Amino acid sequence: MSSRFKLFSDPVHGFISVPRGLILRLIETPTFQRLRRIRQLGLGFLVFPGAVHTRFEHALGAMALMQEALMTLREKGTVMATDEVEGALTAALLHDVGHGPFSHTLEEELLPPAPDGTVHHHERMSRALMARLNDRLDGALDTALAIFDGHYDRTFFHTLIASQLDMDRLDYLRRDSFYTGVAEGVVGVERILKTMRVHPAHGGPQARIVIEAKGAYAIENYILSRRLMYWQVYRHKTVVAADHLLRAAFARARMVWTASDPALAATAPCLTFFLTSGVTAADVDRPDVLDHFVALDDTDVLYSLKRWAEARDPLLADLARRFLNRDLPRTTFLPAAPSPETIAAWQARVAQWLVAEGLSSVARAEANTAYVLATGVARNDAYRLGGDVIAILERDGRLRELSEAQDVTAVSAMAGVVEKPYVCFPKAVALPLVGTA
Amino acid sequence: MSSRFKLFSDPVHGFISVPRGLILRLIETPTFQRLRRIRQLGLGFLVFPGAVHTRFEHALGAMALMQEALMTLREKGTVMATDEVEGALTAALLHDVGHGPFSHTLEEELLPPAPDGTVHHHERMSRALMARLNDRLDGALDTALAIFDGHYDRTFFHTLIASQLDMDRLDYLRRDSFYTGVAEGVVGVERILKTMRVHPAHGGPQARIVIEAKGAYAIENYILSRRLMYWQVYRHKTVVAADHLLRAAFARARMVWTASDPALAATAPCLTFFLTSGVTAADVDRPDVLDHFVALDDTDVLYSLKRWAEARDPLLADLARRFLNRDLPRTTFLPAAPSPETIAAWQARVAQWLVAEGLSSVARAEANTAYVLATGVARNDAYRLGGDVIAILERDGRLRELSEAQDVTAVSAMAGVVEKPYVCFPKAVALPLVGTA
Amino acid sequence: MSSRFKLFSDPVHGFISVPRGLILRLIETPTFQRLRRIRQLGLGFLVFPGAVHTRFEHALGAMALMQEALMTLREKGTVMATDEVEGALTAALLHDVGHGPFSHTLEEELLPPAPDGTVHHHERMSRALMARLNDRLDGALDTALAIFDGHYDRTFFHTLIASQLDMDRLDYLRRDSFYTGVAEGVVGVERILKTMRVHPAHGGPQARIVIEAKGAYAIENYILSRRLMYWQVYRHKTVVAADHLLRAAFARARMVWTASDPALAATAPCLTFFLTSGVTAADVDRPDVLDHFVALDDTDVLYSLKRWAEARDPLLADLARRFLNRDLPRTTFLPAAPSPETIAAWQARVAQWLVAEGLSSVARAEANTAYVLATGVARNDAYRLGGDVIAILERDGRLRELSEAQDVTAVSAMAGVVEKPYVCFPKAVALPLVGTA
Amino acid sequence: MSSRFKLFSDPVHGFISVPRGLILRLIETPTFQRLRRIRQLGLGFLVFPGAVHTRFEHALGAMALMQEALMTLREKGTVMATDEVEGALTAALLHDVGHGPFSHTLEEELLPPAPDGTVHHHERMSRALMARLNDRLDGALDTALAIFDGHYDRTFFHTLIASQLDMDRLDYLRRDSFYTGVAEGVVGVERILKTMRVHPAHGGPQARIVIEAKGAYAIENYILSRRLMYWQVYRHKTVVAADHLLRAAFARARMVWTASDPALAATAPCLTFFLTSGVTAADVDRPDVLDHFVALDDTDVLYSLKRWAEARDPLLADLARRFLNRDLPRTTFLPAAPSPETIAAWQARVAQWLVAEGLSSVARAEANTAYVLATGVARNDAYRLGGDVIAILERDGRLRELSEAQDVTAVSAMAGVVEKPYVCFPKAVALPLVGTA
Repeated sequence: MSSRFKLFSDPVHGFISVPRGLILRLIETPTFQRLRRIRQLGLGFLVFPGAVHTRFEHALGAMALMQEALMTLREKGTVMATDEVEGALTAALLHDVGHGPFSHTLEEELLPPAPDGTVHHHERMSRALMARLNDRLDGALDTALAIFDGHYDRTFFHTLIASQLDMDRLDYLRRDSFYTGVAEGVVGVERILKTMRVHPAHGGPQARIVIEAKGAYAIENYILSRRLMYWQVYRHKTVVAADHLLRAAFARARMVWTASDPALAATAPCLTFFLTSGVTAADVDRPDVLDHFVALDDTDVLYSLKRWAEARDPLLADLARRFLNRDLPRTTFLPAAPSPETIAAWQARVAQWLVAEGLSSVARAEANTAYVLATGVARNDAYRLGGDVIAILERDGRLRELSEAQDVTAVSAMAGVVEKPYVCFPKAVALPLVGTA
Repeated sequence: MSSRFKLFSDPVHGFISVPRGLILRLIETPTFQRLRRIRQLGLGFLVFPGAVHTRFEHALGAMALMQEALMTLREKGTVMATDEVEGALTAALLHDVGHGPFSHTLEEELLPPAPDGTVHHHERMSRALMARLNDRLDGALDTALAIFDGHYDRTFFHTLIASQLDMDRLDYLRRDSFYTGVAEGVVGVERILKTMRVHPAHGGPQARIVIEAKGAYAIENYILSRRLMYWQVYRHKTVVAADHLLRAAFARARMVWTASDPALAATAPCLTFFLTSGVTAADVDRPDVLDHFVALDDTDVLYSLKRWAEARDPLLADLARRFLNRDLPRTTFLPAAPSPETIAAWQARVAQWLVAEGLSSVARAEANTAYVLATGVARNDAYRLGGDVIAILERDGRLRELSEAQDVTAVSAMAGVVEKPYVCFPKAVALPLVGTA
Repeated sequence: MSSRFKLFSDPVHGFISVPRGLILRLIETPTFQRLRRIRQLGLGFLVFPGAVHTRFEHALGAMALMQEALMTLREKGTVMATDEVEGALTAALLHDVGHGPFSHTLEEELLPPAPDGTVHHHERMSRALMARLNDRLDGALDTALAIFDGHYDRTFFHTLIASQLDMDRLDYLRRDSFYTGVAEGVVGVERILKTMRVHPAHGGPQARIVIEAKGAYAIENYILSRRLMYWQVYRHKTVVAADHLLRAAFARARMVWTASDPALAATAPCLTFFLTSGVTAADVDRPDVLDHFVALDDTDVLYSLKRWAEARDPLLADLARRFLNRDLPRTTFLPAAPSPETIAAWQARVAQWLVAEGLSSVARAEANTAYVLATGVARNDAYRLGGDVIAILERDGRLRELSEAQDVTAVSAMAGVVEKPYVCFPKAVALPLVGTA
Repeated sequence: MSSRFKLFSDPVHGFISVPRGLILRLIETPTFQRLRRIRQLGLGFLVFPGAVHTRFEHALGAMALMQEALMTLREKGTVMATDEVEGALTAALLHDVGHGPFSHTLEEELLPPAPDGTVHHHERMSRALMARLNDRLDGALDTALAIFDGHYDRTFFHTLIASQLDMDRLDYLRRDSFYTGVAEGVVGVERILKTMRVHPAHGGPQARIVIEAKGAYAIENYILSRRLMYWQVYRHKTVVAADHLLRAAFARARMVWTASDPALAATAPCLTFFLTSGVTAADVDRPDVLDHFVALDDTDVLYSLKRWAEARDPLLADLARRFLNRDLPRTTFLPAAPSPETIAAWQARVAQWLVAEGLSSVARAEANTAYVLATGVARNDAYRLGGDVIAILERDGRLRELSEAQDVTAVSAMAGVVEKPYVCFPKAVALPLVGTA
């Protein structure tokens, strides 16, 4: 009674048919299974209680959308080899396999910028893990890697994996909207996939993914939804606050590290490695880094925070306790980036508070404000002009870049990066803020 | 086992609780029951097969949203009298009771512009029918009428009935999206209602409906959804084509009217009244006009078309048959309004075709092109600046007009009227069109 | 930019891909387009306002489910020829094309039982219309007809068209649940289709459709949902009341028919044919019967009722008016079928009422009670043992009939026909009812 | 701009309005926040990837349904005091606060049966934690506790908290169905709540919760859905396998416990307490037990398993590794409970395998089979006759127990406990199984 597919029940896309063979084998690896323990939305669950969904199902979902996309493209005349299909599915499945605990939140805390300026990005880790799996599987991922890297000559495959309209974004917007209950984030994924084609259809090196004119409104809606999900979910001010709190706890743990404190000694071993061994973003391909990285998941972080809540350092203990009990700082968006004088004034207040609370000595108070007072800029680039723009195939046969296409007037208003300066600070401290939101 | 409410099962909002008493009594009148036979989306069902839903459920839905809105506003401190609540519910329920067959499609065909320039609008008919019901119910609708008319001193009630963010729009966008299957039209109705308040809360004459800042994204999404539903559904080119075809059949029937043709004589009596008695938009309040109007519904139109398909006049018969069998003309959107010369050239072609098809004598051919060749402009005003703008209550306590509020950058790009010229013509005629969509 | 498919947006199944060629051509025929004007649920919309959906979309939906089913069966190793696939899709599309106005409600009123006892069933009409289309299309429907008739040697195709688990039922349960808002009717269509297979897989004459054991719960739920939808929707007591009222109006119109009453003379012509020409269920294949039948739809019925509301016969006028204004009789389910004495007593009361209301002469009052007092039995056969039972393929490789399969204990309790006697009578008459529900 | 409610966005019920004051304060306690880290469905996520939802949102959902239920009951004439409403909401919110890691899975591993036979049940822990919160809040939970305990004189409140039709079940069925994507589990929660009433309405000590006859089908569907969710989700054979594996790892850790193995020494401290201090189900009210219990969540379990994967004991290390990598044993349901001889034969095989794999010494092999070979019985009691049965208020005013009510024939077939014996064993061992499923 066997079948060529194994079915997974997905609340978002319904049944997902996973081809037995390479794809299923990859799913069964510990490297992939670990994604079951990594929350897709990082700390979003602290604002949206249902958003505890994981990278595991997102990866399955991206692969399922790739299946649908390829079916549509083939139906419209683009011929593909079996190896290409498997490569594209594999690349979609593994594109996010390099995510660490809580997805984006801790990237820089685990692998700090290298002296040479290299900054960590999870895609580099995905690449490294895929390469390792490829070695173990005797090159079975060669095509997937070529597609992932953008080296495959039929470049439209890469577009489906990594672009402003890739399977990753289509899945995560739909999925995150589903689990957060944010109706405004609903995207017409089915319509977008149905109006996709390769142009010209032969799919040679110059051919590209385009959207037929009748799909332009769906794309416009997709851009707006993405923008909206950024402000309403991904950059929600309470999520920003939680991110800062968690990162501060990690920074503090790194700073006060001592094996003589049992609370710190009890840190999860793979985390200890990243906090104490000096590895940086430049070391992603080192085997020991990979070994420790694939051992990491949300569990290690939450567990370690529970230990740190008993740390001797009162500030670390305080940060950890607040995180666990969701006693979060306040984030306020600002009309403009604060001046150095303003920041200095805020720091003075916060330093007083740190001392009063017993969280810092007087001597270190000013330096320690960095753990509880943060300024930053929330960025949102719903759609970038330049680079891998989205192309609309107009009814007259011409290609137009999305923001220049007919009727989708709202796109250009959403193009470019929007920045919102903010400050994040303890709720108990009444910062003098003017004209804020 | 009685209850103060009668439940209606609505696939969009779930159970709707209709208060027994005035509201239920109004629903049971023939004037209201007739809405069960009037399609909400006019001819939209010819493109979206599921969109056969009716004004009846939309009216119930608008009332249900009004219930939710009032509950939220009261919960935020705005006190309301029982009479006001009933008035607002009644006004929401009856706001569209003046719609005729296929909603907007035939408004001008049934009640043509009056010599004094008066143009028909369904709201005038709603007003007239409400007034009539009020007479019969001894003034029970006095408050509802005052709210509907905008004469009630607490003006925020009127805003909930008729504005750019009223219960009508919230219900129809949500509902039309549901029945057409257009996912992009999904609007976060619940969030919008939850972030509404009266400001200041006492709700005096100057107080107005505002949206709290945290609801601004939901409003932006609502504007985009409205725009998108216009192009994708309400002004879908095949819907435009069907509208023209139906109107042409009516215009032709009016023109060739003769009681000696059995097919015309068999026209539904209440339609015969509107086609032959010379009433115009200025006669809306005449009792005989009201009597005939409330006797009309989609049934009369479809039935009459089936009769006209056998009319002696070949053109009328052809128009009717095509409509019934969904053999629709083609609509093409144009880059610019066509010049008189272009139109004349098109007319010449179409006139030839009419003669060749036996649908017109040579002598009348040019005049008759009006029935099968139409140019026009599709308009879409997702959001109008000026007038009853939507107000956002910013976090700093200030009110800002929506397009000037923080973070909702796409709104101004969608404000104002967008116009798309188009031409609608028989598919069998190859019009020479350049640069069209 | 053409594609092999035309997309229809369906709110229930999403996009439906209709193959261009035969299937699309069939959809474009007047015979099929007329289904857009026939409500799927008959008079169900009088209880569930959203349930105005049509046979048109149900037919598309059944075809779409057939596409999915065939895809699954092929994926599990059952080879099919192109002609077989097209035949199965065509049969699914046209299986209900023989439905008349309001689907089941008026079957017997339009084509009464023949003297030889033949009773009308819409499937006979579907067969006749398919045969006619086949003639016009030079035999393109030969395979579809063989499958529909059960003559095709690979019998499993017929099972998918007409059995206790066919595409018809799967679509209508899902669809009717959607439009009525009855959540309990939700059926796991996707799971059922995914667990279907042909056994043995070669699909020879003895092979049959079976459900894998892991789908047994979904089937049990489907049976319960069907039962529940019968009582809660299809046999809802108010729907039963509306059915009786409409049938009574037709019976009365037939009885008092006279061309001298303008209201009757204004009856829709194709209805006039069925009411006055003496055709019966035995005449389904007569060309003139087919011609008139395909000209009929809900429009003609509603239109004629509006005319009859002005009939000279007060009883007919009363029945028609009540129907249009939804002033329905009351249905009461009874603990047992009433005795002849009870019925006689009820008739006496109702006869009095008829006279008092001026709806009948004294002389005819008793006979006329038949139009306003009806007893009957509502039947519900959620699952029939015997005949085309549903087969479960157990994990040990054996086939078991559903009610004998492991773990689905509720099925046998739902098997067999359940009957509920009822009486339907004017609300204004207080019938002495004891122990009723 | 404050409001009396704080909104939570819930993907299942939409916005949940949490009253500020006691309810919100309870949600903010660490005791309650910890539910964010406890998966509602235990190990169900290993089969249904989306089912990582938590007790936190379930508790909010049960409270939200309680709000709706109370609103309906009041609308039907049952008067309630503010204190009663708050008590009922509080009891709904906290009814599951005593759940430990992975909900039910580890109950007996953490708090083994006491010598006096006491077996742990999470409700006892909920009770103890509520009592502790009550102490801290100066008796604010007095009414909630009385309702929870069943001591409150208006007993219908208790029925809403703990019965066969309580808010707990309504929420979890709806929610688990949503996150698993099992469409068959959909329950008409809204209809059930709308057809609930207190009978007689005054709500005195003898008054009870009843369902009006028109809701009986929805209840029948609810029972079937519950049964179906048991077999398809809660007792899914792979979930059963995962449960056994996790429990075996805990049993083994307890058995081989030694602080000298660094892997065991690294066990989460609060787990260490339960594994080594000898506490039992009889100690639930001990302050130190409560302290350690509220410190526990899924994190501690997963973290400890990651450590145990390096344990010196090869069997423990193997169990832990398999769990983490989802290399699960096989569960097979059996036609009957296996005989002692059969079990002995199985044990012999498994013992051989343990030795061959290096997981056990020869001497201990037979005893160690307990960790990898388990027989058991999966139980499912969709509806229990006797005790707190569900009462239907028939249309004639009589109360009938559900299985005796009219028309719901499938209920009695689902009443009573269904048991399915099973065996769970390593996939690598080919057990000789006959007639299994």
